[in-house]
Amino acid sequence: MTEIILHEPLDMHLHLRDGAMLRIVAPLSAHSFSGALIMPNLVPPVTDAESMRAYRKRILAAIGDETFEPYMTLFFKPEYDLDFLAPMAEELTAVKLYPAGITTNSEGGVSGFDIEELRPALGALSELGIPLCIHGETGGFVMDREKEFVPIYEALADAFPDLTIIMEHITTAESVAALDRHPNLYATITLHHLLITLDDVAGGMLQPHLFCKPIAKRPEDREALLQAALDAHPKVMFGSDSAPHPQHAKECPGCAAGVFTAPIALPALAELFARHGKLENLQHFVSSNAQRIYGLNPPKKKVRLTDTPMRVPEKYGEVVPMFAGEEIGWSIDAVSVK
Amino acid sequence: MTEIILHEPLDMHLHLRDGAMLRIVAPLSAHSFSGALIMPNLVPPVTDAESMRAYRKRILAAIGDETFEPYMTLFFKPEYDLDFLAPMAEELTAVKLYPAGITTNSEGGVSGFDIEELRPALGALSELGIPLCIHGETGGFVMDREKEFVPIYEALADAFPDLTIIMEHITTAESVAALDRHPNLYATITLHHLLITLDDVAGGMLQPHLFCKPIAKRPEDREALLQAALDAHPKVMFGSDSAPHPQHAKECPGCAAGVFTAPIALPALAELFARHGKLENLQHFVSSNAQRIYGLNPPKKKVRLTDTPMRVPEKYGEVVPMFAGEEIGWSIDAVSVK
Repeated sequence: MTEIILHEPLDMHLHLRDGAMLRIVAPLSAHSFSGALIMPNLVPPVTDAESMRAYRKRILAAIGDETFEPYMTLFFKPEYDLDFLAPMAEELTAVKLYPAGITTNSEGGVSGFDIEELRPALGALSELGIPLCIHGETGGFVMDREKEFVPIYEALADAFPDLTIIMEHITTAESVAALDRHPNLYATITLHHLLITLDDVAGGMLQPHLFCKPIAKRPEDREALLQAALDAHPKVMFGSDSAPHPQHAKECPGCAAGVFTAPIALPALAELFARHGKLENLQHFVSSNAQRIYGLNPPKKKVRLTDTPMRVPEKYGEVVPMFAGEEIGWSIDAVSVK
Repeated sequence: MTEIILHEPLDMHLHLRDGAMLRIVAPLSAHSFSGALIMPNLVPPVTDAESMRAYRKRILAAIGDETFEPYMTLFFKPEYDLDFLAPMAEELTAVKLYPAGITTNSEGGVSGFDIEELRPALGALSELGIPLCIHGETGGFVMDREKEFVPIYEALADAFPDLTIIMEHITTAESVAALDRHPNLYATITLHHLLITLDDVAGGMLQPHLFCKPIAKRPEDREALLQAALDAHPKVMFGSDSAPHPQHAKECPGCAAGVFTAPIALPALAELFARHGKLENLQHFVSSNAQRIYGLNPPKKKVRLTDTPMRVPEKYGEVVPMFAGEEIGWSIDAVSVK
């Protein structure tokens, strides 16, 4: 039997939603992760200290007595400034920027990326040492949207050299390459983008449960992401982008974007890294890099995984997970909190 | 009011299925088309004269007293030869070649395209003057499959210069370009590939009813198809590839490929051609080119369309059509049979 013990695993891009869905999914992440960066795209989005604190409370209520730190974020608005952000800086792990209308609940996002217009807000983040997380897609053709956004990432990185910019859920070789051109560019990568390409979504039968934004790209893109993750690229972190939608919202015309992976992410990552003989690098990908990049000190949690297969449930509540009903070669054996 | 009268409209690529589905969809095509090339990918596929004749009888029974010619095809098998094909040549409008496993019910198709292996069968078709229709996709990455097949089209066109080869439901600029390099290459284009790109399938919410094979491609591909159709390229014919699946097989994990357009194809084409000021070319695209290329003499039918909007039904039987519940700017005003 092969095993690995992960210390303080972190999910640096997580959708917990709210209400009944929050109560279903939050405990699933809290069970195996030490903490997660919580996306603010609720309806309405989290845009002030009060709603952020209230959301944090609802998350903590949902996870019960699990040891888990919800790292909170605000939904970026260009009118944010130092006066607004400074009082909540200690409670705020990052600010998340969405181009307007680009994904689920992002209608209030940014249109156009005028550096001068963004200077007050991004200057304040830079000064306060708060990272900016960006969903980097243009409104172009679906396979080109991220590639077309890379110059915007680069312009922002140049204009705000002291700002930590996280390219969220990157899906292309172009984004991986950009990491090495700018000291202040970092990235998260999801589980599913390490595993699938557009072929898995639409190359055989259409698979709505693998439909996500950004859409899975070409084999050479997945290969570039996989190499960065497996090699424990120091600027790359795991962020699941686990995005629960009820089954009826996925299996219908107008299927919602999002893959639900939180409860199976660590076993699936362990299997993937083991298959490539890179198990020793998993700790960097799922925790150490994020701790260093964000300056986090997450609650202690040891997760022991072994190559004992697990059968993935068909559903968690009304949410169909990735690999529903299938077997993953690894499983969580024990979780201990010191 | 603007109008157009189409004479003997033909759908040169049609899936009528069998049984209850045949009885739902065949009358819908028979109402507005004068004839259609009937795809042979039943389960099991149509591979001999007897099953072809029996299928033709079931189609004629399903359409009742409509004036409509089902142009019959066989599912290509490499073992076909002159002795086998000659006796049924008069009843056979074309033979349809599927690469193995590439689309719905194509498991028994061709693997590899060895010219010498194919010579007996394709030589026989060539000698008998029977066109070969090909679903031209490789097993590669979904966005590359048709592009990668173009060299195979070209090799076959060169090896069998007297064989009429129809590139079915082309979706790429590369296929359009190949038409002008080989005198014996022709193509069909669907309605949906003139209207949508991958953006419409997966660029916003996922739209399973627009999921088809070959998958819709890039904007520049659609533009090339549109120009060929609107300009009445003499080697291009309308073939709907209308492919009915029951709603439950489209709105589920493992959604079947196919867009159901037969009943709305002529109004939607009239609207499209009118919008581009090319209404006068529609007759070539929906009939004259096919008559010339295939040497057909279809039953007389005049279809009068006007720019009076129609509301598309939510369903035909259990099949959801393209534009379900939406309005099309044109409609069929009258059909007359001389």
